[in-house]
Amino acid sequence: MRYAVIMAGGAGTRLWPAARRERPKQLHRLIFERPLIAETVHRLAAAYPIERILIVTAARYAAAIRDAVPDLPAQNILSEPFGRNTAAAIALAAFRIARDDPDAVFAVFPADHMILKPDALFRALEVAEDLARRHRVVDIGVPPSHPETGYGYIELGERIATQDGVEAFSVRRFVEKPDRQTAERYLAAGNYIWNSGMFAWRASAYLDALREHLPETYDLLGPAITSDEEALADAYGQIPDISVDYAIMEKTSDVVAVPVDFGWRDIGDWAALYDMLDHDAAGNAFSGDHVALDTSGSLVVAPGKLVATIGIEDLVVVEDGDVLLVMRRDRAQDVKKVLDRLRATEREEFL
Amino acid sequence: MRYAVIMAGGAGTRLWPAARRERPKQLHRLIFERPLIAETVHRLAAAYPIERILIVTAARYAAAIRDAVPDLPAQNILSEPFGRNTAAAIALAAFRIARDDPDAVFAVFPADHMILKPDALFRALEVAEDLARRHRVVDIGVPPSHPETGYGYIELGERIATQDGVEAFSVRRFVEKPDRQTAERYLAAGNYIWNSGMFAWRASAYLDALREHLPETYDLLGPAITSDEEALADAYGQIPDISVDYAIMEKTSDVVAVPVDFGWRDIGDWAALYDMLDHDAAGNAFSGDHVALDTSGSLVVAPGKLVATIGIEDLVVVEDGDVLLVMRRDRAQDVKKVLDRLRATEREEFL
Repeated sequence: MRYAVIMAGGAGTRLWPAARRERPKQLHRLIFERPLIAETVHRLAAAYPIERILIVTAARYAAAIRDAVPDLPAQNILSEPFGRNTAAAIALAAFRIARDDPDAVFAVFPADHMILKPDALFRALEVAEDLARRHRVVDIGVPPSHPETGYGYIELGERIATQDGVEAFSVRRFVEKPDRQTAERYLAAGNYIWNSGMFAWRASAYLDALREHLPETYDLLGPAITSDEEALADAYGQIPDISVDYAIMEKTSDVVAVPVDFGWRDIGDWAALYDMLDHDAAGNAFSGDHVALDTSGSLVVAPGKLVATIGIEDLVVVEDGDVLLVMRRDRAQDVKKVLDRLRATEREEFL
Repeated sequence: MRYAVIMAGGAGTRLWPAARRERPKQLHRLIFERPLIAETVHRLAAAYPIERILIVTAARYAAAIRDAVPDLPAQNILSEPFGRNTAAAIALAAFRIARDDPDAVFAVFPADHMILKPDALFRALEVAEDLARRHRVVDIGVPPSHPETGYGYIELGERIATQDGVEAFSVRRFVEKPDRQTAERYLAAGNYIWNSGMFAWRASAYLDALREHLPETYDLLGPAITSDEEALADAYGQIPDISVDYAIMEKTSDVVAVPVDFGWRDIGDWAALYDMLDHDAAGNAFSGDHVALDTSGSLVVAPGKLVATIGIEDLVVVEDGDVLLVMRRDRAQDVKKVLDRLRATEREEFL
């Protein structure tokens, strides 16, 4: 049996004001037909039976996710009382899956990444899941196209298998987001790939690794997942806040990586969203009705509005509820500074 | 007795999307505390008793004007069945005033101009109204500060009076909006002033001029103003659509002009509104709550929204109802092109 586990706990603050504290990025449509989480489930449903797709999310988003993905069985939405990072979130899913089928293999997916070539990904996943039956964990990586400084990298060792045209390599090490010079070196070396945050495990292998590296989490969460909400909240209160990368991946031997170009896009901020969209002849991406005069290189997201633009270039305009954001596209990272300012001036209601 | 007549029929399309077909400029707050028409009435109420302030407007705006200016007696709002330009609108007011007091003097004001130095204007108006008792019409003009091509000009003749420090001149001629070169010549000549669209008449003098130059309007409107709506609509259907400037002023001898610098601002478009506002140290004018990072020279009007701007300069951003406008400030005239485009693509609902 194979399962897909979608991690849907994060907030995505650089996509403010679409993403808010009370309605994170994965619950927003952005410029798509459906909320991101529904896009992700719909995409995975081509490869996984819907009853074996699980979503791990924060309890306060659970109802909204149920509404966004009505065809997913309600018990497939696993609620965390509060966020304790990815090691715990994946543990929640692994305990659930192992309860029914300890030998099942599951793949972990972020809720808010775009996949432009799903068929390539699904082909690689079948190989990855097959390898996960014999190895501890299989990482899905992406061959780098440019010296990106915003992602972590995986250094590959020797090739250990080729199956259905998909190659698999041993992993030498995981490396943090590099500086520009280092990223260029990685790109030139040829044996570094981007860490996509997708991996495949046997449920029992994840729990073995958890017991070895995070024994408290193993001991506390295992019994708690079958008890009531209060017991789960108690357990969460006592487990460490740590990512699966730090806690497990980097300490685990026998890690395999499968590099695959599946058109991966992390919709990290508005500039990244602009980059992944189709543009008109003047390089604009508009969501909704608009009249554009002498407008170029701009992204406009203002659901339900007519937007008129005159003489602008390389701007991002986002209107969402009670907030309007207008910025130069190359300043997309500075959305965080606006949020800092709002916090500093006690305008939390806009976060 | 002295009356103030406010002309409030126009639409102000260059201030779209704040000004719309169904809610013209004078009914909008823009960035002020009250709608423009209420600002105008409030300002004039410092010089004229409220019961002698009249508003001439289109019937479809009458109810909204009543709401915007609740302290004005309802019968002081004169409704035109539809617009027939300024000669007819002023005639409506003149007939009403003459019915009570043919020797009354009235001054005509646009609804949507700003007056930054009202005391200077009121001093000039007293002189103008005094002169209107002995001359046919007295025009309030503005000494030009720059070679403006957007206004009509008045060529002055000899000085005919000085009263309370206010000078009055005979008028040689009215001239249309000039080209740049001509405007520069006018400025250098020193005897040309801007035509502000404000003038003072005796009611009887206006009606005499009307009888002379627009006899149909005189004959049809006079009886109609005391009858029912239908009779007035009938009369309006038969009278010419012509401005007071073309129909009367330019054909009338014995016109006097009073130049006065009263801080006149025609809020013609968003750039003009920006110019007349106070700016912060970076040259911005914001209406409402905002967070501005590296933002300069920009006007933002988005009532009820938090607006965040990052790295922008010299922009105008206006959010109003179902429309969002983002443009370079020096393109404010091109709002008309957007309206043309909307008409051409049958999106009349946004006009």
